[in-house]
Amino acid sequence: MRLLRVGPPGAERPAVRDADGRFRDLSSLTPDICGAFLAGDGVARARAALAAGDLPEVLGVQLTGEESPVRVGAPVARPGKVVCIGLNYRDHAAETGAPVPDRPVVFLKDPATVIGPYDRVLVPRRSRKTDWEVELAVVIGRKARYLDSPAAADDVIAGYAISNDVSEREFQLEFSGQWDLGKSCETFNPLGPLLVTPDEVADPQGLGLRLWVNGTPRQHGHTGNMVFDVRYLIWYLSQYLVLEPGDVINTGTPAGVALGRPDAPYLRAGDVLELEIDGLGRQRQIVGQA
Amino acid sequence: MRLLRVGPPGAERPAVRDADGRFRDLSSLTPDICGAFLAGDGVARARAALAAGDLPEVLGVQLTGEESPVRVGAPVARPGKVVCIGLNYRDHAAETGAPVPDRPVVFLKDPATVIGPYDRVLVPRRSRKTDWEVELAVVIGRKARYLDSPAAADDVIAGYAISNDVSEREFQLEFSGQWDLGKSCETFNPLGPLLVTPDEVADPQGLGLRLWVNGTPRQHGHTGNMVFDVRYLIWYLSQYLVLEPGDVINTGTPAGVALGRPDAPYLRAGDVLELEIDGLGRQRQIVGQA
Repeated sequence: MRLLRVGPPGAERPAVRDADGRFRDLSSLTPDICGAFLAGDGVARARAALAAGDLPEVLGVQLTGEESPVRVGAPVARPGKVVCIGLNYRDHAAETGAPVPDRPVVFLKDPATVIGPYDRVLVPRRSRKTDWEVELAVVIGRKARYLDSPAAADDVIAGYAISNDVSEREFQLEFSGQWDLGKSCETFNPLGPLLVTPDEVADPQGLGLRLWVNGTPRQHGHTGNMVFDVRYLIWYLSQYLVLEPGDVINTGTPAGVALGRPDAPYLRAGDVLELEIDGLGRQRQIVGQA
Repeated sequence: MRLLRVGPPGAERPAVRDADGRFRDLSSLTPDICGAFLAGDGVARARAALAAGDLPEVLGVQLTGEESPVRVGAPVARPGKVVCIGLNYRDHAAETGAPVPDRPVVFLKDPATVIGPYDRVLVPRRSRKTDWEVELAVVIGRKARYLDSPAAADDVIAGYAISNDVSEREFQLEFSGQWDLGKSCETFNPLGPLLVTPDEVADPQGLGLRLWVNGTPRQHGHTGNMVFDVRYLIWYLSQYLVLEPGDVINTGTPAGVALGRPDAPYLRAGDVLELEIDGLGRQRQIVGQA
């Protein structure tokens, strides 16, 4: 299943992409794709309704990243929390001058930063170092608290999505030792377009991730190179905090961010970001100024 | 106005304490004390209804911290985010061996950690260093984005409450450089009992804060000793992230935490925490084991 949400910010409607690439309205099943829907076997109900051919078509949706007549939102309603994993690819740790961590580095991002995959990303006022990060996002479908093992994580994953963990490096790294401020600026987490359920993703550690700025390839990584894999991360997090349906985990970024380049090509208004993960679709954002 | 929420977790009802110390049901005005209520002049409407004598009494509420027939919840519905300020009292920075920061140290706490002021606080599994922190919490009433000056913060403050920013020091300080993991464990943010509006608080920098463990005084500070005051913090945060109605800011803790004591008296199941801030009431939690 490939779930999505379409419509104006704050008034998105739930939808699903069918096998023919058409979009079907799920409003008759649920008011939204949210934690309650995911925890309440909503995916199974959507699958049954899709198979029965009961769902009306939604016209005007394009996932190409060009201007879509109907806006595409993030594929889940505003999360209760966005958990991020830092330095989870060896090559990214190396480019930032940090050692490869021996435990996951965990921080949080303001959930209000989540926007649609084609929405505008804003450079904050007085920012000099706004940077990109393509990441595999995991969306939680069932409560996870003290999971017994990494294998138990399979029961709590609702699906996967592309995430852009936009980061202001001066706010993140130079203002204090805590990173959250530079991760939580307005518009700093484009998510989607699709929430792809685990049955459609053969192996979450088998995905290529790519990001371009103004058409120049900047990141080209592979989830097989994560320091801590998806199952381990979910198990680990569940030992310390409670993961709830609808929560989002950004699992870290591979090398290729502006911070790691000698010419430090940080983002400016007018730049165009494109992101892609195998099987999860494509994002595109035009950069604006706050 | 002194607002509160009473009833079982997840099903709290809005209420107000009147001038006689009785509790009045606000359900006829609003389904909850949440961001939408605060941003929609809910406080003014509640004041008018209270003056008109229209509100039915709620019986069975006690704010003494002893077993109350009707449970008292946090005084605001689950926040969109909980922003915390670290090392914001000189004496606390000194006891932890950290320098006094030259900018606010900003981190986030999982909003799901917010519980009622008399609910049980759980020591996480495998925790050895669960610690307390009495703090003045500020609840946001209107959106704050790039405020012009600290004085403009007055327009966005809905009120004040007692907060216990419970912290696991090993998870916070020893597992990585990022603090959020040790701040985001289940039950780690008792809030309330009351949301006290600014007209009832002569000066947010004029409040004594006190905390006891098993009757032993552990913290006795004063908000006049903050490194960065409430108005400055709100102005500062608004330069980097967007504060939204219903968001909570924990403004830091004074000296006296277990981390700062030679005998490191960290919390264990059965311990009793009591917290007090001038004019904001009193909290009491019994510590349990997760």
